[in-house]
Amino acid sequence: MLTIENAIQSFNQYLDKASIPKNPSNLYEPVSYMMSLGGKRLRPALLLISGSMFGNLNDSAYKLALAVEWFHNFTLMHDDIMDNADLRRGKTTVWKKYDLNTGILSGDVMLLQAFQYINSIEDKEKLPAILTAFNKAATLVCEGQQEDIDYEKRNDVNADEYLSMIGKKTAALLACSLQMGAMINSAEDFVAKALYDFGWNLGVAFQLKDDYLDAYGDPEKFGKKKGGDILMNKKTFLLIKAQELAKGKNESLLNKMLKITDDSDEKIEEILDLYDKLNIEKITRETIL
Amino acid sequence: MLTIENAIQSFNQYLDKASIPKNPSNLYEPVSYMMSLGGKRLRPALLLISGSMFGNLNDSAYKLALAVEWFHNFTLMHDDIMDNADLRRGKTTVWKKYDLNTGILSGDVMLLQAFQYINSIEDKEKLPAILTAFNKAATLVCEGQQEDIDYEKRNDVNADEYLSMIGKKTAALLACSLQMGAMINSAEDFVAKALYDFGWNLGVAFQLKDDYLDAYGDPEKFGKKKGGDILMNKKTFLLIKAQELAKGKNESLLNKMLKITDDSDEKIEEILDLYDKLNIEKITRETIL
Repeated sequence: MLTIENAIQSFNQYLDKASIPKNPSNLYEPVSYMMSLGGKRLRPALLLISGSMFGNLNDSAYKLALAVEWFHNFTLMHDDIMDNADLRRGKTTVWKKYDLNTGILSGDVMLLQAFQYINSIEDKEKLPAILTAFNKAATLVCEGQQEDIDYEKRNDVNADEYLSMIGKKTAALLACSLQMGAMINSAEDFVAKALYDFGWNLGVAFQLKDDYLDAYGDPEKFGKKKGGDILMNKKTFLLIKAQELAKGKNESLLNKMLKITDDSDEKIEEILDLYDKLNIEKITRETIL
Repeated sequence: MLTIENAIQSFNQYLDKASIPKNPSNLYEPVSYMMSLGGKRLRPALLLISGSMFGNLNDSAYKLALAVEWFHNFTLMHDDIMDNADLRRGKTTVWKKYDLNTGILSGDVMLLQAFQYINSIEDKEKLPAILTAFNKAATLVCEGQQEDIDYEKRNDVNADEYLSMIGKKTAALLACSLQMGAMINSAEDFVAKALYDFGWNLGVAFQLKDDYLDAYGDPEKFGKKKGGDILMNKKTFLLIKAQELAKGKNESLLNKMLKITDDSDEKIEEILDLYDKLNIEKITRETIL
């Protein structure tokens, strides 16, 4: 079985060799730019690790790894528009660097290329099942993104809804990556399904940990300012749980703090105090496990 | 072999029965709206007609017909954003009726659904070749759209470039529809290829006729104001050919007219006169044939 480091390295070598069309350059140059921004390559690495548990990795496994990474980057390209984001991995986002139309159209062609990679696997008998798995996950990612947008506008989102949303938006593709790795190396169906479930839980935990670290992480290690989500009233698991649990004076204080819109250290401190009173740290930690 | 009327009617009946997911409603309701706007259903009709030449139509042929129609509507949903269009078939465009993010994300999920329809054909042995054909056409559509955007900013586009661009943007999907209809009913490869080529020529002629009718059509029958493209300096085959052929005084006059930006009947008349002098009507008619 591959280690995560070996899987990432092996995938990056394959990715470097995979060519991107040149023309029309205004369509494909932004694709090359997007892929050059790097990233953790977590999804293709999981796919390769999963595949390596059931035999040697062949070219088809790498094709599927490319497909999930291209799909992931397609979602990022469109999400950056929807989130009005200027920066991605410290660099200018595609739609800001080029323009809105480029962000849309270059994203579209990345999605098509992801399907082409899937279609290029050698053992065509596996194609229908793999396509079904991929398409299901891809659709869940879109549905999760829509729910995320919807939930930002609602004030009554509960923890179960939130967990389901991050499952679709973040975990489905991780789960599907593990599943497809198993499928391409002929693992049995129940094994592929178990890996899917494991990936789903991993993905949800991954997102919850991200929520957790904003409040309780070491900013040095985490690489983000502490309380960034708190300042922006971002609907994290922590805030949603606090909104569920806060009653009376605590509820008033929370609502008062959420009305503060400027960068205020006091807001972060008050909300962290409230999280302590409501036992949010422990609840989140236990939900992750 | 089906007539075009029968093919359209038969497809519309099938389309009416095809269900669209309900939730999240902000994702799928715009999809239902888009599909309810109607349209000529030309692509699915061509696919069914093509299939009907080689045997009875089975459910898989209709699945492919749904796929091309969903794909086509996905492109329209994104194109309407890129073209900043308010109206589509006389109704408000999706991104104007809802918002930009909806136009992007609901379009994305339509593209995924198109692939799911393709993946749902019964004879899985045909899947790799059909997916390859569809993916190639879909990619050409994106490339053609990019070239269209690029060409609107250039002043030196020649007729060959224009014909190649409308081939990709308009003809590739028509061609692929005919091809896939043949493939799903087991026509021989060279027959499917011949239908593809026929569809390509048909698509290019279709677009040229659209360009032609703006200048020479009967506005009553055509349903658009005469000279609408001329007023907007739209880079049609007629204008591109005129720019190629106009020299000296004619060239100066054309450039002067292109600088007029308000709605001017004089501009339409002057440019139509110039088209007469340059023999544009005949050249276009002969290129269509």
